[in-house]
This record gives sequence, structure tokens and C-alpha cells, in this order.
Amino acid sequence: MKAVLITIGDEILSGNTVDTNSNFIAQQLKSIGIPVLKILTVADEVQTIKKSLAEGFEIADLIITTGGLGPTKDDRTKKAFAEYFGDELKTDDATFLHLKNLMIKRKREHLLEINKDQAVVLSKAHVFQNENGTAPCQMIQQNGKTAVCLPGVPYEVKPLVKDKIIPFLQQKYALSHIIARIISVVDFPESLLALTIEQWELDLPPNISLSYLPVGNRIKLRLTAVGSDAGDLKIQLDNEVEKLRPLIGDKVIAWDGNDIQEILKELLLKNKLTLSVAESCTGGELARLITSVSGSSAYFTGGIIPYDFNQKIALLNVSEKTIRQKTVVSAEVAEEMSVGCQQLFKTDISLSTTGVSGPRTDEFNNTVGTVFYTIRIKDSVQTNSLFLPHMERNDFAAFVSQRVLQDLVSMILKIFK
Amino acid sequence: MKAVLITIGDEILSGNTVDTNSNFIAQQLKSIGIPVLKILTVADEVQTIKKSLAEGFEIADLIITTGGLGPTKDDRTKKAFAEYFGDELKTDDATFLHLKNLMIKRKREHLLEINKDQAVVLSKAHVFQNENGTAPCQMIQQNGKTAVCLPGVPYEVKPLVKDKIIPFLQQKYALSHIIARIISVVDFPESLLALTIEQWELDLPPNISLSYLPVGNRIKLRLTAVGSDAGDLKIQLDNEVEKLRPLIGDKVIAWDGNDIQEILKELLLKNKLTLSVAESCTGGELARLITSVSGSSAYFTGGIIPYDFNQKIALLNVSEKTIRQKTVVSAEVAEEMSVGCQQLFKTDISLSTTGVSGPRTDEFNNTVGTVFYTIRIKDSVQTNSLFLPHMERNDFAAFVSQRVLQDLVSMILKIFK
Repeated sequence: MKAVLITIGDEILSGNTVDTNSNFIAQQLKSIGIPVLKILTVADEVQTIKKSLAEGFEIADLIITTGGLGPTKDDRTKKAFAEYFGDELKTDDATFLHLKNLMIKRKREHLLEINKDQAVVLSKAHVFQNENGTAPCQMIQQNGKTAVCLPGVPYEVKPLVKDKIIPFLQQKYALSHIIARIISVVDFPESLLALTIEQWELDLPPNISLSYLPVGNRIKLRLTAVGSDAGDLKIQLDNEVEKLRPLIGDKVIAWDGNDIQEILKELLLKNKLTLSVAESCTGGELARLITSVSGSSAYFTGGIIPYDFNQKIALLNVSEKTIRQKTVVSAEVAEEMSVGCQQLFKTDISLSTTGVSGPRTDEFNNTVGTVFYTIRIKDSVQTNSLFLPHMERNDFAAFVSQRVLQDLVSMILKIFK
Repeated sequence: MKAVLITIGDEILSGNTVDTNSNFIAQQLKSIGIPVLKILTVADEVQTIKKSLAEGFEIADLIITTGGLGPTKDDRTKKAFAEYFGDELKTDDATFLHLKNLMIKRKREHLLEINKDQAVVLSKAHVFQNENGTAPCQMIQQNGKTAVCLPGVPYEVKPLVKDKIIPFLQQKYALSHIIARIISVVDFPESLLALTIEQWELDLPPNISLSYLPVGNRIKLRLTAVGSDAGDLKIQLDNEVEKLRPLIGDKVIAWDGNDIQEILKELLLKNKLTLSVAESCTGGELARLITSVSGSSAYFTGGIIPYDFNQKIALLNVSEKTIRQKTVVSAEVAEEMSVGCQQLFKTDISLSTTGVSGPRTDEFNNTVGTVFYTIRIKDSVQTNSLFLPHMERNDFAAFVSQRVLQDLVSMILKIFK
């Protein structure tokens, strides 16, 4: 079984909203061995949606659409599905009852009447009820083709996919397995890495493919294996990874794991280390990245965002003299921040960032894109700087935060072998 | 001129990476009046890319691709372009020189040899040099069709698009203008809103279209006007917005502006208010959202993330007794946090959040998805709660942060009329 995803909505095409649904659905499908061959984002027009369905079914036997199911005029998905499948739309009693109960639960019974069209579904569809919104999910199966239409709101999409669509597909169709493994390499330019592992890559068995995914100066090597037995695939991947060790072992910071914050979690738990942050130019992004991991409260004690430089003095004991002499964006201030942070939160590790994310220079006339960060593990200290003048402020905060955690992982690996 | 975007890369299809490039490019194109009709995400295979180019040119005269230009084996875009346009690939001296200088600047001259293929470009292409990476941007124009291929790394894509492609296209092609205006409505269910403005919507002139974009319980009404004169379009939009005022005025928190953090910025600057945050369950996301705005240092003083409950006591003076009696996830603790935060940072406004983002319950056995937040503006206090048991932790933090800022905007509007 192969899939095509179709995202319906002018808000994506106009650049108003980033499509995160496709990413989530692709991950979920992959976990049950269904590859996504193509993702289409199209306008909310009946003819366009019908054409996209036809286009998708040329190469895939499963299409999942998101968006275009709300109660307002700019939603035309259901009509397009009905026309494409030669089906008709009718009010479904079970769906109407579900909708009614949802309205009662939300104390919005007075809105039932104007939402009643949400209970109108394709007559041949299997309906998965939506616990978190008014538009149900519908699945229609015809001539070996399966089409699923989902609403567009991400927190409605996720539970529908995870708890309803995936179990349904898994039980009914999943044939082959796909297993992926990601190896994280740092301080190794992509071109040189490619050259170093060229022969190994050429010798990979045909059911294993390799991709390079750069994230800052980390390169994620993703090995993907396809086959009928998950256990066999795991052994096969383990074997290939073993062959890589002598080639690039000294540059690898993790032999498994996608996100740097998850890789860090394992290391912190294993070595029983606690962590705090004092972040200025990253503005909360570093803490957000750390706390995006479930279970992070076991090692993350807290953070401080001393955005105004007076707060660096008041809350973190950074000396006024240092700021006057070196300016607030300096290695010295980053180091003093990390000391203050470690003392304030009483943690084994503290991280600090100070920089100018732009677009304007700061009050000390420091150049946009300059950043200093300190990693303090007990008494060991490492302060680094980056210069990223070309990045917009959100990319800047994300890049710096990724890099700080990546360097922290490297440093923990060195200290706690 | 109409555009199709093609994202090339298995990392998007496999769900490993969220495609943010398309969003940025769509926004940029829109600003010069070029609508994006379709976004395709396809695998990094020569035949697939060629087919996508053909498909795109069926409906558009501009195609912009991202991804698939790196120095490693999984990049096949250039080859596909050459075959599609019947062109050949050759080393370009100017591009090679640019590459060499980049390598010298980065102290990586030893890598020039293995990166030299990055200077191989289409013989008919116009090359835009990439200041932030090794793969250049190429533009090929043939029979009225324009194709641009960009690298995949977002911080390389953004300056290339913004500083090179857009000015080029603007000068050469932009014909009609597109102007959008977003009106933010709160506490108004979508279905009821649609009913309330139905006649107004039906009466809209044919060159103006309306979309509903729900974000939490805020609905963004986007009006998009297309025409030949930007000034006329603005007047036309203003007129339509005026007609809306008597219909929904009391539910509107902003008559212009997309992001809640930008709407907030205007209000804070106008009323000369400073802001600090004490966030627990949002883990840095609230501060990140506030500081994502350029110029936020003018009103955002700082934040604290007391993730461990002891830090709420130590840093924010939350009373132990309150925590014991009400647990850490309670309206009382949220209020005390906001008091401590306001005192610590000496700001007009403080915001606090405390909740259980899951997936597990906290040490006090509070239910996953429960959250309390306090908004304190000088002496005015408002504490609200939400129950979001169905959300994953990142969606949870994002949803709560959006909502807190939205309620803050509503409260400022009430107090500072």
C-alpha cells in the first residue's frame, strides 16, 4: 500500500499557515510500513480537489486529505469526494447524535442547528467520529482505492489519525515494514562524509536506502530498511551500522535518535544530571526545545530569560563592570550568566546564551548575528561563539538552541565516557 | 504570473522534517502579486522531478523548487532540470570562484575539491550566488516558462528568495497586486459567525475573497483583494471592513494583523506597558512567542520558567501552604506566580501558566490537560483555566500560549479603551 497526502486549503497556499499535518501523518504511515510518495497542497475548489484525487490514485492506493471540512463556505471537500466517487451526501444519524452530544458537552446546544451540516456525510463512507471538533473523518473504499478525509485543525487530526485511522489500516492492510535508524554526525562536512562512506554506501543491500539530513552542523544519516519482518530488518540495520563505526565513529554523537533533545534526555538520565538555562537571545526557545520532551521534568529544573540586561545583573549576578567593559554580548557575560544560573537553580549543568538576533543592533552596537553561549557541567566550562548574520530571528533562536544542545551532548560524551 | 512550488526531498515525505520553505516562499510571492496554485512534495528521483515540472507547468508559468541540490548522492534535481529543459550541465567559472571564496572565508579550502560539483550548473541558467551555502540558485527561462531551483536549507533559501528572486521577478513580471487583510474575531463560534456575516459575504465584489482561519478560539477572517492598483485595493478593503463593524465589532480584537504577538506589540507600545512571564507548563513557548517579534525588547523585560515546583517557591514566592492545599496546578498558584513575577521583573503586566502537559499526570495527580493561567495588568487580575486532554505536549504549549496572549489583548482593550 502506498499513500499520497492532499492538503486542502488556501491558508497554506497563501503562506498564512505552515502545514504540519502532512508531517505527522507521514510519520504515522511510515510506522506501519506505508510510504508517502507525494504530498499535494491545493486550493479549496471542487474541480481542483477532484483532479488531485485522480492524480493521487495514479500512483497510490491510499489518499488522505486534510482540511476543507468546516462549516463555512470555503470548504468544498465533501462535495468533491461525492462527485469523484459518484456518491451522494446524506445526513448520518449516528454522526448527528455524536455532534449533538459534543455540543451539549461544550454547552453550545444553541449552535447545533447551524452546525447540522457537519453530520452530512458520503452515503458509502465509514465514519470515524471526531472527539475534538465538529467535522467527522470519513473513509471511502472503492475498487481497491481508499480515500480518507480529515479536518484541518492539527489537534483534531492527530488523535483521529493515531487512534482511529492507523489502527484500522494496520489491521486491514499493512504488508511490509519500514524501519529507520538515524545516526548523528557532527563536525564533518557533508561532502567529506559522503566521500568517507562512499564504498559502504555502494555496498548497502538493495532494501536499505541512505539519506543525508543536515541540521545546523549536525548531519543526520538516515538508514531506511524495507522488508517483511521487522526483527530481520533491525538485525540488518545493526549490521550496517557496525560497519560504519570504524569509518566515522569518532564523529558520531548518537547512533540512534532523531531529535537532539531526545538524545540529550537519554544522556542526562543515564548520568543522573540536572539542567537549567539562562537564555537571552534565544528568548525561551532553548527551554521550549528541552521541555518539548515528555519526561523532561525529571532533569530540567528551570530557566530564566533575562531579556533586559538589568535582569542579568539582578537575577544572575552578572557584574556591571563586565557588561560595561565587554558589552552584554560577550564570552565573559555568557560565562557569568552560566555561573549565576547554576547557583540559582542548583543544577549540575547550566546553559547560557547572549547575542543579537536582529534585525537591529543592540544598545551596545554589537553586530547582528553575533552570539556567545556557555555550557557549564559542574566545574567544566566551554564557551563558544557563532556568527549568523543572515538568519531571521526565529531561525536564529532555533539554530542557536539546536547547536547549544548538540555541543552539550558532545561535552557530556567527553566527560562521562 | 502564477506559481507552483515543488519541494524535493525524502525527508519531507518520510515525516522527518516539516517543510517551512513553501510557507516562506508563498508569502513572498504573494507580496508581489503572484499566487501559488499548488505545492507539490515529491521524492528525490530524476523521473519524478521531471514529471512534477511538467505537471506544474500545466497550470503555472513559474515553478520554484527547493531541495535536492547538495553534494551527496541523494540529490538529483540538477539532472532532472537538464533533462527537462534539454540543457546540459557544465562548470561555471563565476560560480566556482564564488564557491572557492566561500571555502576560504570558512577556512575550508581543503574541501573545495570534493565540493567542486556544486559549481556545475545548467548552461542556460542565470545563477544567483548563495552567500550561505555551497549550492547556487539557478533560474532557467524558456518558452515563457520560468523555473527556479533553490537549495533546501531554510536559512539559505530565505535570503536567496527575499534578496534575489523576489526583486528579479518583481522588476520583470509582477502585474496584478494582491492585498490581504486579517480581522481577528474571538468568542464567536465559526458557524454562528458565518451566519452573521452571510449577506455581507455574498455582497463582496468579485475581486475580493474571504477565508476563515481558526487559531484556538480566535477566528482570523482573511480578506484577499486582487487588482491592478494597490492603493485602490486598500480603499476597497477598508470599505468592506467598515461594513463589518456594526455586525461583529464587539467580538473583534484586531482589525488588522495576522499574529497575536504582533497585535500585542502594537497595543503594548501604544499604551507604554512592559511585560514579563512566569511559565511552567508552557516551558518557554510563551516567552518564545513574545520574543519572536522584532523589537520585543522594548516591552518584554524577561521571563522565568520554574519547572520544578520548588522553584516556584524559591524564585516567585509562591507559598508552600497554597501548593500543599491546592496543588501546584491551581488558580491560586497561578495567581501567586503572577504576583511574584510582576515583583521580580517590575513590569506593568505579568503572565503565568501552570498545568499538566502530559503524557503522564504530575506528582500531585492532576489530570493531564489541565491548565490555569493568570493575566495581571497592574492591579487588575484575571485567572482562567483550560482543559485540553487531547493535545500532545507541543501543541498544548503552543495552544495555551496563543490563548494567553489573545486573552491579554482582550483585557488590554477593555482596560485601555
